[in-house]
Amino acid sequence: MLTFYYARNTCALATHIALEDAGARYDARKIDFAAAQQRSPEYLAINPKGRVPALVTPRGVLTETPALLIYIAQTHPQAALAPFDDAFAFARCQAFASYLASTVHVAHAHLPRGTRWADEPASIEDMKRKTPANMRDCFRLIERDLFIGPWAMGETYSVIDPYLYTVTSWLGAHGIEVAEFPVIADHFRRMGERDGVKRVLAAESA
Amino acid sequence: MLTFYYARNTCALATHIALEDAGARYDARKIDFAAAQQRSPEYLAINPKGRVPALVTPRGVLTETPALLIYIAQTHPQAALAPFDDAFAFARCQAFASYLASTVHVAHAHLPRGTRWADEPASIEDMKRKTPANMRDCFRLIERDLFIGPWAMGETYSVIDPYLYTVTSWLGAHGIEVAEFPVIADHFRRMGERDGVKRVLAAESA
Repeated sequence: MLTFYYARNTCALATHIALEDAGARYDARKIDFAAAQQRSPEYLAINPKGRVPALVTPRGVLTETPALLIYIAQTHPQAALAPFDDAFAFARCQAFASYLASTVHVAHAHLPRGTRWADEPASIEDMKRKTPANMRDCFRLIERDLFIGPWAMGETYSVIDPYLYTVTSWLGAHGIEVAEFPVIADHFRRMGERDGVKRVLAAESA
Repeated sequence: MLTFYYARNTCALATHIALEDAGARYDARKIDFAAAQQRSPEYLAINPKGRVPALVTPRGVLTETPALLIYIAQTHPQAALAPFDDAFAFARCQAFASYLASTVHVAHAHLPRGTRWADEPASIEDMKRKTPANMRDCFRLIERDLFIGPWAMGETYSVIDPYLYTVTSWLGAHGIEVAEFPVIADHFRRMGERDGVKRVLAAESA
């Protein structure tokens, strides 16, 4: 049995969907960021980073979305959510996840969380002004170079799809219509029709 | 045969060392950032991200340090550089790599590359002032929670070791003595004594 810690409107959505896709047995627990619950001693004892997602496994706690997605895929092989037996295809998956985590998520985070990297109000506002251009650059590259189609990694659905879906859902916060990127918009629509995604969105909104 | 593109004083050092550790057959090519060679049409045709590292394999180009490290480990199994057969241990490796890429490298990048995320000179200076505190927070967490010892992931050397070594080498740029973190300082010293590391440092300085 797994225990999954998430917060609404965060990257934890990707792991939450992957757990559903995998048919995993898990208990989901919501962390209330508005109440700063991620900084509570109880939660810091689980994840000293004070972030979500975190996944409590029988052997210990795991964090970081790219690691969690691959862990879920590897421990639920019947769901075939990552190409472990093909080193090149697996590396392409990993590179897509790494780009979403270290470039796209970071570009996004300068809108809601600029205080991580600067202190002055004018700097925070400067960062906010720049995020739409950075997010557009990222999604142009994703649409042109990374996305294979019909799913992110090609013919086979993988754990990269819920991660891309999650990051795509943030475009609106930057004043960007997903329709600017037709291939990604079609992927986003098809993801929204999946039962696992519907179940997770309902659970996170409850 | 692999072709490896790197630039000096970048995170590509980690992959470069991993290639040596794996005993890989590769041709290393230096990209001159001072001459903006990473933005040349020739290089963008190889890696449209305009970044290093990039690894040209017989099946195509791979990017992103966490993906490259695991690819090198997976394609050189005799070097035993990652615990593929243990999903939990593998996820811990992946989480360490992901933290270095998406949190520590990003914290560092606000010193030399703040213009990625803001435009005003005052904002860039504000970011620069904050990087020492952020880097210290990251290394405290690494030393206390992530590093197992004697190597990053425990008794067995892995591809996480050259990645941690690379990121540790950036502390000086933030005015931080590695000796502030005794466990990491000892790791950094032992890494520097390895033949593979010495060969790569000599090659990159040539």
